[in-house]
Amino acid sequence: MAVCVYPGTFDPITCGHLDIIQRAAPLFEKMIILVGKNSAKSPFFTVEERVDFAQRVTAHLPNTEVDTFDGLLVHYVQRIQAHVIVRGLRALSDYDYEYQMASTNHTLCPNIETIFLMTALQYAFLSSSIVREIGRNGESLSGMVPEPILYDVTTRLAQNKSQNR
Amino acid sequence: MAVCVYPGTFDPITCGHLDIIQRAAPLFEKMIILVGKNSAKSPFFTVEERVDFAQRVTAHLPNTEVDTFDGLLVHYVQRIQAHVIVRGLRALSDYDYEYQMASTNHTLCPNIETIFLMTALQYAFLSSSIVREIGRNGESLSGMVPEPILYDVTTRLAQNKSQNR
Amino acid sequence: MAVCVYPGTFDPITCGHLDIIQRAAPLFEKMIILVGKNSAKSPFFTVEERVDFAQRVTAHLPNTEVDTFDGLLVHYVQRIQAHVIVRGLRALSDYDYEYQMASTNHTLCPNIETIFLMTALQYAFLSSSIVREIGRNGESLSGMVPEPILYDVTTRLAQNKSQNR
Amino acid sequence: MAVCVYPGTFDPITCGHLDIIQRAAPLFEKMIILVGKNSAKSPFFTVEERVDFAQRVTAHLPNTEVDTFDGLLVHYVQRIQAHVIVRGLRALSDYDYEYQMASTNHTLCPNIETIFLMTALQYAFLSSSIVREIGRNGESLSGMVPEPILYDVTTRLAQNKSQNR
Amino acid sequence: MAVCVYPGTFDPITCGHLDIIQRAAPLFEKMIILVGKNSAKSPFFTVEERVDFAQRVTAHLPNTEVDTFDGLLVHYVQRIQAHVIVRGLRALSDYDYEYQMASTNHTLCPNIETIFLMTALQYAFLSSSIVREIGRNGESLSGMVPEPILYDVTTRLAQNKSQNR
Amino acid sequence: MAVCVYPGTFDPITCGHLDIIQRAAPLFEKMIILVGKNSAKSPFFTVEERVDFAQRVTAHLPNTEVDTFDGLLVHYVQRIQAHVIVRGLRALSDYDYEYQMASTNHTLCPNIETIFLMTALQYAFLSSSIVREIGRNGESLSGMVPEPILYDVTTRLAQNKSQNR
Repeated sequence: MAVCVYPGTFDPITCGHLDIIQRAAPLFEKMIILVGKNSAKSPFFTVEERVDFAQRVTAHLPNTEVDTFDGLLVHYVQRIQAHVIVRGLRALSDYDYEYQMASTNHTLCPNIETIFLMTALQYAFLSSSIVREIGRNGESLSGMVPEPILYDVTTRLAQNKSQNR
Repeated sequence: MAVCVYPGTFDPITCGHLDIIQRAAPLFEKMIILVGKNSAKSPFFTVEERVDFAQRVTAHLPNTEVDTFDGLLVHYVQRIQAHVIVRGLRALSDYDYEYQMASTNHTLCPNIETIFLMTALQYAFLSSSIVREIGRNGESLSGMVPEPILYDVTTRLAQNKSQNR
Repeated sequence: MAVCVYPGTFDPITCGHLDIIQRAAPLFEKMIILVGKNSAKSPFFTVEERVDFAQRVTAHLPNTEVDTFDGLLVHYVQRIQAHVIVRGLRALSDYDYEYQMASTNHTLCPNIETIFLMTALQYAFLSSSIVREIGRNGESLSGMVPEPILYDVTTRLAQNKSQNR
Repeated sequence: MAVCVYPGTFDPITCGHLDIIQRAAPLFEKMIILVGKNSAKSPFFTVEERVDFAQRVTAHLPNTEVDTFDGLLVHYVQRIQAHVIVRGLRALSDYDYEYQMASTNHTLCPNIETIFLMTALQYAFLSSSIVREIGRNGESLSGMVPEPILYDVTTRLAQNKSQNR
Repeated sequence: MAVCVYPGTFDPITCGHLDIIQRAAPLFEKMIILVGKNSAKSPFFTVEERVDFAQRVTAHLPNTEVDTFDGLLVHYVQRIQAHVIVRGLRALSDYDYEYQMASTNHTLCPNIETIFLMTALQYAFLSSSIVREIGRNGESLSGMVPEPILYDVTTRLAQNKSQNR
Repeated sequence: MAVCVYPGTFDPITCGHLDIIQRAAPLFEKMIILVGKNSAKSPFFTVEERVDFAQRVTAHLPNTEVDTFDGLLVHYVQRIQAHVIVRGLRALSDYDYEYQMASTNHTLCPNIETIFLMTALQYAFLSSSIVREIGRNGESLSGMVPEPILYDVTTRLAQNKSQNR
């Protein structure tokens, strides 16, 4: 179980994401936090910002690494010869989508497994979009966004308040 | 990620259980298939039968082992110094129960993680209780129960038709 | 689409059941309302009472008929050479169970289809067990149980108040 | 909004129940914590114990009171001339049942409203039955059962370990 | 329990909204129906129209008032020193979103409670977007939109049929 | 039960759609596969392509026919004097939407019934949007899109890879 991939848009990375990373990373030799470019989703933060945030909040976890991708996730996983995708399950709304993705990926590559961890209860309803919504309205994001990036995420969101959205 | 535990009542073990075992076992050094005695549930098959069935259908998987337990699952996992519980997620009805169990177990032992695999679609609605119901009515269980135990499970269920239920 | 079967325990038949019958029966030449004996469920009303209730509330529907069965539903459907099972979907809690049953029945007999109608909103949460609970406490069942059997169901439930439950 | 009723079996009362009580009581002049006798459910704790536990954990809330009932909830609410029932919504599994109960009660008594509070996330999966299961296995119930009754609940559950279940 | 806030986009206000208002308003001294400007959602009706509609259908409820807001809901609630947000729960799809919102708002302001009422069954699937879709196709909106605004909503939707959407 | 209508966007028609058509068509004299123009949804394939695909994959089913519509579905069903709409239920996410649509259509035209079939398990998570996503990334769509249109769908999606999305 050498390498696992933890994919997402991470727009921005939240305390919920970090919780999954901290619990799953020890189970593997290496975990790649894979930032999807997802231009179709028009993320608020640039891919460079999202990678930078992910790197700063996982700096204390030696066996993690951050990378980016575009296209089909399974192509990336195959290319680096990994066999495991890690996903967090939050509330019910994730379930169907995650089942669909895991089934589709298993159909495309039967030798890649997706394993799920249940998000800790205190983050069960936390999402990047809620973080953006609250940040834009000038509220503190403490406890929602990890400490190392709290100032930068808050500043960026507050400053785009008037122009964005 | 030395050892994982795959707990259940396995009354009897189904093709859906075996699918999870076959996909999860390669990710670990050793997988213990843990048969819950569950006297409160009044299983149809004796614990000896359930262990025997589990052993026969996993005979081809060298890094699996079958054991039994009673009481709290986390006590067993702690005692053998494992850190991972594996569970299959079938249809939606499992989700809440599994979330509850994983949360409770994490509260009791924060250093034990539960990881989930999504049951393959063709087994999404297969359960031990459906197997028992169909077997009691004399229908074939082929494709529901693994080949090595098909005859024995079928015979046992058919023979208890009149008296049980 | 000659004959369809509408199976249930009907303990007792409710206005929600009747709504499904009245909407589905015109789509078929004949509809058989199939009362499951279900001794395992220990119904409150005897099978004779449940058949009698079903017959009285469908007396105005010439192409319906009431019958009983035990064992696997698909065996009955095959024996009378029907090809369609009709079920009502109420609230969410039904969905998984119904999907499981329809999948299992399709596996057992691929030439039998289950079709579903959505229960009318006003009956979305009505069930036989709620009817029994309310009746036992002496409340009116008007609007929950069809008129032709309202008196008998009410009387039977009220009278068993003390002894049953 | 003089009086509200918070009904349950409270077998035993948990930190999740107390959270709902502490948040809802200030919204009303008086809140009655209504312990259902529920002999059909065969509660583990006697009705006297359950009332005693509820009284002790709410001793600091002057506008709460504990009472018992049997039969239909709306009969009790009508008798004391209250108009509001309070319920906590935990995980998804509660939703359908609660919708069904609220709809049924509204049909029986249109002038009684049921209002819901979402259970705090940390108690989202806590239930009386989990408390009993864990307590019977000798694990600490701290954080699951309120302090004032922690010793008594733990003792009672541990002592019934062998005989009960 | 002096003041409660019932927030929404009300694009337009429906019979389902009115049902919640009529049932919840009597429980409070004053209820503020709060029309979100929601420019991000690009509502079909202008904020002036939506306020006007809300005022006309609640003209008979003396303790209700209509206001508008932008930004975070909890900021509005704090500013007017209210402590209760009222929301209606319709079908399952609402549940997760509402849980997420209530949890987030509770995190931001622990002294503000969100209470929920279950939407009456006949409105369980009614929404503003369905009203707009049906109105644009020239169908009657009777029973979906309250009488006092039926003519105006119907006319506005029919007339925008060709140009809008 | 002369004629039924099976409506959808079919962007493109999948093996899951075809499974429903093949199981439901035999139950009726005639089935109309109704392609919604849905300009608001901005389908990837033109309406002419979607009709052509639907015709080619149902060429072997003599009692099926393909047509197009715009506006309210019930208007079309009424105009051709049909009484039955057929829909497939896939995973849970469909359920609420389908219940809402069936309820709305029943309110608009009480003499039109919607009947549902459960999608076969192997297609439980297949959707047109997943087909488009996978095709754009150059993966094989075999087993997801029926053979007769596999080449054309694959080619069209691959070719739009760079420009679309």
